[in-house]
Amino acid sequence: MNSDLSIALDIMGGDRGPEVVFLAANNILKKYNTVHLTLVGLPEALQNIDSSMKGKYRDRISFIEATEVVSMNDNPLEVIRKKKKSSLRLAIEEVKYKRAHACVSSGNTGALMATAKFLLGTIPGVDRPAIISAMPAVNGPVFMLDLGANVDTTPNNLLQFAIMGSIVSKDIMGIESPKIGLLNIGKEEIKGNSLVKDTSKLLSDSNLNYIGFVEGSDIFQNVADVVVTDGFVGNIALKSIEGVASLITYYVKQEFNLNLFRKIQSLLANSSIRGIKKRLDSRRYNGATFVGLNGIVVKSHGHSDSLAFESAIDIAVIEARKDLTSEIKNYIEGL
Amino acid sequence: MNSDLSIALDIMGGDRGPEVVFLAANNILKKYNTVHLTLVGLPEALQNIDSSMKGKYRDRISFIEATEVVSMNDNPLEVIRKKKKSSLRLAIEEVKYKRAHACVSSGNTGALMATAKFLLGTIPGVDRPAIISAMPAVNGPVFMLDLGANVDTTPNNLLQFAIMGSIVSKDIMGIESPKIGLLNIGKEEIKGNSLVKDTSKLLSDSNLNYIGFVEGSDIFQNVADVVVTDGFVGNIALKSIEGVASLITYYVKQEFNLNLFRKIQSLLANSSIRGIKKRLDSRRYNGATFVGLNGIVVKSHGHSDSLAFESAIDIAVIEARKDLTSEIKNYIEGL
Repeated sequence: MNSDLSIALDIMGGDRGPEVVFLAANNILKKYNTVHLTLVGLPEALQNIDSSMKGKYRDRISFIEATEVVSMNDNPLEVIRKKKKSSLRLAIEEVKYKRAHACVSSGNTGALMATAKFLLGTIPGVDRPAIISAMPAVNGPVFMLDLGANVDTTPNNLLQFAIMGSIVSKDIMGIESPKIGLLNIGKEEIKGNSLVKDTSKLLSDSNLNYIGFVEGSDIFQNVADVVVTDGFVGNIALKSIEGVASLITYYVKQEFNLNLFRKIQSLLANSSIRGIKKRLDSRRYNGATFVGLNGIVVKSHGHSDSLAFESAIDIAVIEARKDLTSEIKNYIEGL
Repeated sequence: MNSDLSIALDIMGGDRGPEVVFLAANNILKKYNTVHLTLVGLPEALQNIDSSMKGKYRDRISFIEATEVVSMNDNPLEVIRKKKKSSLRLAIEEVKYKRAHACVSSGNTGALMATAKFLLGTIPGVDRPAIISAMPAVNGPVFMLDLGANVDTTPNNLLQFAIMGSIVSKDIMGIESPKIGLLNIGKEEIKGNSLVKDTSKLLSDSNLNYIGFVEGSDIFQNVADVVVTDGFVGNIALKSIEGVASLITYYVKQEFNLNLFRKIQSLLANSSIRGIKKRLDSRRYNGATFVGLNGIVVKSHGHSDSLAFESAIDIAVIEARKDLTSEIKNYIEGL
């Protein structure tokens, strides 16, 4: 097998069906010629893969048949107990048994996190895994965590999130010493709740490049390279950001469709509008990594189309090449 | 004096100087012909008011001279102790001594809240005042609170915020029984931290039209008329929303200024672009009310221009006409 890196893909997880994963897989196999992909899904879904793609990449593609699928409404603990042959679980098992360097799924976030935690376990010295993703900003992506893995968080958890975020930023953005900001309601030391005040002390005493408190609006101005917060605040901020971005897209569409004159304007302004759309394209930011586990698990958005799923696989490829898990392990051991 | 309603304006609070307040005041006096305005500021600032405006509205405008100004960096407690003749404080005193029905300031939020709390006190039965403001949504504004007055909040505080938010929504939007949503990281009952879980029980047992948990993205879809959250989360969500909206505006400008061809496109698409700008115009949403105090205090954004400041005065006028303070008092007494 002429491949150095293997990624397992759960083809059953997303709203848009396995076709999206097949298209993304095809692009990935074309783009990276030493990457191997393992597609995990129900037999009837797997058989729909394009036969020319299957033939063309036969050396770098393999298949695992699952007997069941995790739905968006499944309870995470029930999934662990009962859905042992689901595509979601079998994809993670590929990572657990070192047959894959990472896995990607668009499935139920809670079930994916619970199963990954159960099968892979957390890195020694890491108390809680977290969810990290890139956010758009003026001068390029900023990483933010935790985006919803934990609702009750201690200062020490947040310190560990900062460490892991720093490593992810270094790996993906190539920043030597990423600036760490702690999300708060003001920059002044007296501001905030006891969680952020206590965490700020820990971060100041750490070896990280801690720059202090940052506010919600600072995320998009590259004030920090990594923004650290607890999962409750992080998830609400993330969804508020997604929500307002959709609202604005809706406004833009409405204004350009108000009447015939406006429709003509939109044709004339086509290249600018496409440029704006491209910049606002959340698909380019798809792919949230579960950090702190003994293995790389990337969560793709449930509504992902093929471009979005491809972005998530890209993240998995970069993190696997950098061996993110070992990097975090080594850093924590060295403390 | 042929006026039935008086509003005190701190002319010194904003970044853009008293001129902005004068322009807004002029529009307000023109728009509402029974509203009286009291302008509070340093003598040298007050004397710059346009003399024709002063003449035209002489029956509905009065002036109070302050001897000092509260800066953005002043510590709130120091302001209470030492800046007793500041424009910020004298404007609130107009409300305290019933010479004005409401006041508006673009000044230091912390100092404004602390001084208002100190001078006016909270309504009996309200433990903590909160900050409420309108947010843009697909089918018209949604109100959200607390936007940053409190960092440590109990379920009972959040119940009180919900009551006050419901009254503000009824007054300003004319909705008979506003839908109340509690901001959380998912809609399912098992989701969230103990604060939201306990609050949800209280809200279910209340007389409010409580619809359950809402997520960050739901704010912009009018899922609820009032979104309730603690001040830490609310402030971070608010600033994240403002931040991403600015980022998108920046993208739009950049795309239409990329080259000469794009600039021509932007001229051709002028009316659509203006329409989009208007819809995204945060100035139309300016004006956050401090609810739960014995008097109406409206905080205008520090960067407010005259249109934004005018929106904040509009909010004060509506709330004063509805006698918001008595409405909240009566509701709480009736519990």
